[in-house]
Amino acid sequence: MLGKREPGVYGHATLEEIDAMLAKEAERMGMELKTFQSNSEGALVTAIQEAMGWADVLIINPGAYTHTSVALRDAIAGAGIPTIEVHLSNVHAREAFRHHSYIAPVAKGQIMGFGAESYRLALLAAKEVVGP
Amino acid sequence: MLGKREPGVYGHATLEEIDAMLAKEAERMGMELKTFQSNSEGALVTAIQEAMGWADVLIINPGAYTHTSVALRDAIAGAGIPTIEVHLSNVHAREAFRHHSYIAPVAKGQIMGFGAESYRLALLAAKEVVGP
Amino acid sequence: MLGKREPGVYGHATLEEIDAMLAKEAERMGMELKTFQSNSEGALVTAIQEAMGWADVLIINPGAYTHTSVALRDAIAGAGIPTIEVHLSNVHAREAFRHHSYIAPVAKGQIMGFGAESYRLALLAAKEVVGP
Amino acid sequence: MLGKREPGVYGHATLEEIDAMLAKEAERMGMELKTFQSNSEGALVTAIQEAMGWADVLIINPGAYTHTSVALRDAIAGAGIPTIEVHLSNVHAREAFRHHSYIAPVAKGQIMGFGAESYRLALLAAKEVVGP
Amino acid sequence: MLGKREPGVYGHATLEEIDAMLAKEAERMGMELKTFQSNSEGALVTAIQEAMGWADVLIINPGAYTHTSVALRDAIAGAGIPTIEVHLSNVHAREAFRHHSYIAPVAKGQIMGFGAESYRLALLAAKEVVGP
Amino acid sequence: MLGKREPGVYGHATLEEIDAMLAKEAERMGMELKTFQSNSEGALVTAIQEAMGWADVLIINPGAYTHTSVALRDAIAGAGIPTIEVHLSNVHAREAFRHHSYIAPVAKGQIMGFGAESYRLALLAAKEVVGP
Amino acid sequence: MLGKREPGVYGHATLEEIDAMLAKEAERMGMELKTFQSNSEGALVTAIQEAMGWADVLIINPGAYTHTSVALRDAIAGAGIPTIEVHLSNVHAREAFRHHSYIAPVAKGQIMGFGAESYRLALLAAKEVVGP
Amino acid sequence: MLGKREPGVYGHATLEEIDAMLAKEAERMGMELKTFQSNSEGALVTAIQEAMGWADVLIINPGAYTHTSVALRDAIAGAGIPTIEVHLSNVHAREAFRHHSYIAPVAKGQIMGFGAESYRLALLAAKEVVGP
Amino acid sequence: MLGKREPGVYGHATLEEIDAMLAKEAERMGMELKTFQSNSEGALVTAIQEAMGWADVLIINPGAYTHTSVALRDAIAGAGIPTIEVHLSNVHAREAFRHHSYIAPVAKGQIMGFGAESYRLALLAAKEVVGP
Amino acid sequence: MLGKREPGVYGHATLEEIDAMLAKEAERMGMELKTFQSNSEGALVTAIQEAMGWADVLIINPGAYTHTSVALRDAIAGAGIPTIEVHLSNVHAREAFRHHSYIAPVAKGQIMGFGAESYRLALLAAKEVVGP
Amino acid sequence: MLGKREPGVYGHATLEEIDAMLAKEAERMGMELKTFQSNSEGALVTAIQEAMGWADVLIINPGAYTHTSVALRDAIAGAGIPTIEVHLSNVHAREAFRHHSYIAPVAKGQIMGFGAESYRLALLAAKEVVGP
Amino acid sequence: MLGKREPGVYGHATLEEIDAMLAKEAERMGMELKTFQSNSEGALVTAIQEAMGWADVLIINPGAYTHTSVALRDAIAGAGIPTIEVHLSNVHAREAFRHHSYIAPVAKGQIMGFGAESYRLALLAAKEVVGP
Repeated sequence: MLGKREPGVYGHATLEEIDAMLAKEAERMGMELKTFQSNSEGALVTAIQEAMGWADVLIINPGAYTHTSVALRDAIAGAGIPTIEVHLSNVHAREAFRHHSYIAPVAKGQIMGFGAESYRLALLAAKEVVGP
Repeated sequence: MLGKREPGVYGHATLEEIDAMLAKEAERMGMELKTFQSNSEGALVTAIQEAMGWADVLIINPGAYTHTSVALRDAIAGAGIPTIEVHLSNVHAREAFRHHSYIAPVAKGQIMGFGAESYRLALLAAKEVVGP
Repeated sequence: MLGKREPGVYGHATLEEIDAMLAKEAERMGMELKTFQSNSEGALVTAIQEAMGWADVLIINPGAYTHTSVALRDAIAGAGIPTIEVHLSNVHAREAFRHHSYIAPVAKGQIMGFGAESYRLALLAAKEVVGP
Repeated sequence: MLGKREPGVYGHATLEEIDAMLAKEAERMGMELKTFQSNSEGALVTAIQEAMGWADVLIINPGAYTHTSVALRDAIAGAGIPTIEVHLSNVHAREAFRHHSYIAPVAKGQIMGFGAESYRLALLAAKEVVGP
Repeated sequence: MLGKREPGVYGHATLEEIDAMLAKEAERMGMELKTFQSNSEGALVTAIQEAMGWADVLIINPGAYTHTSVALRDAIAGAGIPTIEVHLSNVHAREAFRHHSYIAPVAKGQIMGFGAESYRLALLAAKEVVGP
Repeated sequence: MLGKREPGVYGHATLEEIDAMLAKEAERMGMELKTFQSNSEGALVTAIQEAMGWADVLIINPGAYTHTSVALRDAIAGAGIPTIEVHLSNVHAREAFRHHSYIAPVAKGQIMGFGAESYRLALLAAKEVVGP
Repeated sequence: MLGKREPGVYGHATLEEIDAMLAKEAERMGMELKTFQSNSEGALVTAIQEAMGWADVLIINPGAYTHTSVALRDAIAGAGIPTIEVHLSNVHAREAFRHHSYIAPVAKGQIMGFGAESYRLALLAAKEVVGP
Repeated sequence: MLGKREPGVYGHATLEEIDAMLAKEAERMGMELKTFQSNSEGALVTAIQEAMGWADVLIINPGAYTHTSVALRDAIAGAGIPTIEVHLSNVHAREAFRHHSYIAPVAKGQIMGFGAESYRLALLAAKEVVGP
Repeated sequence: MLGKREPGVYGHATLEEIDAMLAKEAERMGMELKTFQSNSEGALVTAIQEAMGWADVLIINPGAYTHTSVALRDAIAGAGIPTIEVHLSNVHAREAFRHHSYIAPVAKGQIMGFGAESYRLALLAAKEVVGP
Repeated sequence: MLGKREPGVYGHATLEEIDAMLAKEAERMGMELKTFQSNSEGALVTAIQEAMGWADVLIINPGAYTHTSVALRDAIAGAGIPTIEVHLSNVHAREAFRHHSYIAPVAKGQIMGFGAESYRLALLAAKEVVGP
Repeated sequence: MLGKREPGVYGHATLEEIDAMLAKEAERMGMELKTFQSNSEGALVTAIQEAMGWADVLIINPGAYTHTSVALRDAIAGAGIPTIEVHLSNVHAREAFRHHSYIAPVAKGQIMGFGAESYRLALLAAKEVVGP
Repeated sequence: MLGKREPGVYGHATLEEIDAMLAKEAERMGMELKTFQSNSEGALVTAIQEAMGWADVLIINPGAYTHTSVALRDAIAGAGIPTIEVHLSNVHAREAFRHHSYIAPVAKGQIMGFGAESYRLALLAAKEVVGP
């Protein structure tokens, strides 16, 4: 799972707590979870490319890159792995430039606005996408 | 409360099946669920206004009205009930005029792209939004 | 004739109070007043069409339909009755999509921003429009 | 056949006359014709959905909803019945907002600008679309 | 009658077949028909100007020039002959730049989307436009 | 009261008549009225700034400056006096560049389309805005 | 009447020289010429209004106000005097914001790009506009 | 001199009259004048290219091609001959798409709105451009 | 097949020199080359249509028509021959209106910015497109 | 030279205090400072023109005219004096129409967002611009 | 202090010289200065996040990322440290896409156009922002 | 040579094969070739800066960064090395946001749409650009 948190808003502790919560939840659901965080667009692209060998679903919070990164979009489309776009906040209630997502048209679906719960719902959706 | 399905795509049986699945799921979660379906923008507005007396959360699939109805937006904002916007398909992978939602900026969050599963995820999100 | 109030903002009592105030004011001015309220664009269109037989002036608060309804615009233009567009709030101090009115170009005039007083001013304007 | 006339422009008598002319013309061509008129977007959507069981072609004059209704568009696309969009006037010679049609991209074809004759031409086109 | 076919799509034989069908149909309706085809915008303009002496109606398929030619528009407006714009395909179901027509605002009406049948319907409309 | 008339349309006599009518009406309502007219944007700005010491309400017809003057907007916002924007004609029925008002978003309300009566209605609205 | 020169480009002497040339030319043509120059939009508006009593034609170089002044446009339209818009330079060969003129749509005609000669041509055009 | 008249508006006689008037005027001014008229963009381009050997100034009324022809623009810019753009009518008082000229940015100047007199003024301007 | 050169920039000799260079180069590569040059959009369309019988690849420099001609685009798409768009200069380093090409979306590829060498590269690319 | 303050925000005393602070600071830096304040666009233009004789640098806070005045821009460009644009607030954190400055492209530089300190920084920058 | 120079324009020596000048200036002012330079958007984001523990003010020259990086904007907004945006050149005198800054709306202020002096002025502004 | 492949589309082997083919071709042409590939915008910028010491031409496939990276554009413009922009596919036949290139205006030329052959053509063009 790839993602990028806004540490200025939520702090490092919370990122670890979310990771822990997701790890537990994934284990309960019988899914293997790998997490990755980076401020670098290129590193995120590379992580998506490397996920091609083993991942059945990608859950990505592209943060600010949602609105500016054609590279992330092409990486997701190129990887061919069903991808779930997640946002902690409801981006449509924020500035107009956040209403456009380069990622959304190549994603399987979107979940946003439920804080850390958005990630847990994405895990459940991932389970469904992968199938039994 | 469900919004407006596209019967030409999914048929009446499926609507009933979704309703049944959601009723069972809601019961399992200890939530009371009422569903409403209408082709009429005005009837949807009225249904939202009438939900003010009893509903803790609204789950709405505004269908085509997502992109054209300021009336639904104002009804949701006026009702003051946390609202979850749901779409069966990923509207961002469709025509450009479907990328804009009048509902999103006044919604709590959005879930789209997972078919009928989108509704079940919305029920889970609703549980979280209401709190224990 | 009144258009469509936002009950989430003002409550049902207020609508009745405004109606009562307007009825009294109209009576004082020697005018006959009929009021109509609906959430349905189609019902508003029908009401305008039915007003063709007897009304000398229309006072309409098109609410959210101000910004989206060509049908209301065509009904007003087709009815040929001088129409006064009223808004409780100053729509130009709100979101950008509320700055455009499909109704305004076919209306006689506009009064907005004075709350319920907007309706009373519209009655006075209606008196002037009809003439002695 | 669905449609919505502008009574402020043509009067009720004319609507009935058009209906009578079309009924006669359809009978002459060996076609069964049902007509429907409503000011309500939702009622028009419902009528299109109900036409799925029996109609081979839809002839629709979406009036003002041409320019604002994604719901009508989705109903037509969902019904999967070849649809002919008709307008009494040439909408391209009117205001700029009437130049865009949500219906046109999902219609089989368009006929406009010939008054009531537009409907008769649409009947002839319908005959051709259905085939022998 | 002026027009411009897309030979790459339909071949020369078909153009002749359409011409023959239209000639026969025109004769049956007691109308005199002249046809003209050219790849040159200027030649089409000249043909319209020369039609001023004898034609009662123009039927034009402006092809690609629909979207780029102010010269054709001015020629039609200047000729003062009622003009029917015809397209074989439904241009609104194609690329966005084909949705705008310089010709439509100065035409009497539009017929599109019915293939060669579009021309026959235009002949019938022409009959109606000219009157008895 | 600030304002700018279009003398080419209404003549000087009319301006005086409106002033006289307003003066009489204001006296009847127990309000003190000062009027000011200028062709100069800067003089209007200065007049608004000088009104800060004594005026409870501003009634302004910004004329052509409605559509071009950020300076007037900032003067009104800076003065902090409730302001009523008045237009003799319905600007929304005129050229597109007149549909945007820099003044409206910082005004209390708008009244337009009733000719000189627009000013009298603004006086009544001013009375209501000031309160008893 | 001349509008507003750009002294930073041409210097005061040149303005006087142009005035002298125009005065001589006007005398030769039997026309009475009054010139006016101001940096103030309001003063230009006032000058146009005052020209209503005596001028048969206005020749105006609106300088920078060409692109921003609705007030000048309204003054010209309101004065009802045929007006010739003049520019020393070819504004269409400069920045994009100079390509739009608020004055042009209400002017009789435009002459630009010939330096001081533009004014002399405008005098000749004025002679023609006034007639013998 | 290149140009393209709108025969639907002015008739053939007038074109000849303008030509005659210009020929006489040119002779009086000691200038040699060649005129050219065509409905074809390509022919106009060729005429401009052929003028490179002998013409000191081009006077062009690009008619409808003003708004659509990059080819004319490139021909003028490529020819390197000072060019005066002429219009019989004031294009800025017509439809919005006529307000943009591809020719203007590469022209020496523009004269429009004075009917046939526009051409005579252009001849005078041409005299000035060429110099003594 | 070559499109349309800008003679004002490169002169006639150069066109012949380019033709000669290309002829020699084509011969060396064992390709048969026919060249065509015209200022007329219609003639270029006709040339493309006539190439359908014998050409395996089209190399076109659409010059100014790149930015305005839907007719050329439709001719290329209709001909179904792989087409290489060539420009002598880098159009993206010029005016904004030159950044859009109607031809590019229906071309196989684009080569621009290398002067006459652009044509030679296009010949090499053509060789590759045709295959051995 | 200072431009135009917003007295509704900062009061007259503050303007004097800023003037005093700047006078002292200029004196300390060995610079001669003249200040000018006006609500009139025309007066500001005149002041800039009059500064041509003596000023080495202009410091201007164009206030609301920043966003609407081509006249100020032309005056600055015409004067040929290096100009520093100053704003008390950060205009980019305010309404969208304040993000565009007609002045910025012809200014030497911009300093904004530091309140009265913005002026002092501009004086320091002016010192640097003039050189030793 | 974060920043990104354009080495192709100014060379490495100059970057060091600016650093040295700023270090000396900061020392003179009693401020502690850390500088950081990177071509990587992600590295700049990380540097801003790491500045949260110790910096009172950020001075950032976002270079090309000014116009494309929502990530830098979110990092600055998230860090909550007053930030001064600096540019060596006046970006408003360059290409249109450089006129928009994602950084400006979340910055305290902007200083641009004074070359290396822009940094020194920013240091002075930083001193003022921090306060005594 | 700089570049960025889409590994999800073509696989790692192909990248190596292209590199091998280009190395062989460069050797045959007597050119020295260095290749660089990275997912990181910053690393690409750095590579361009480092090429300043030794490269005579840059061949760059900016991939997704074509459409979003002002940093790459500035690096290329700053390096002052003639640059050839290459794309494997014809970007103009893909989504609209891929039609704009930040790189093109500062490149020497563009070659796109010929797959791996695009690179070989770029090498040939590079040879020509460098000269003998």
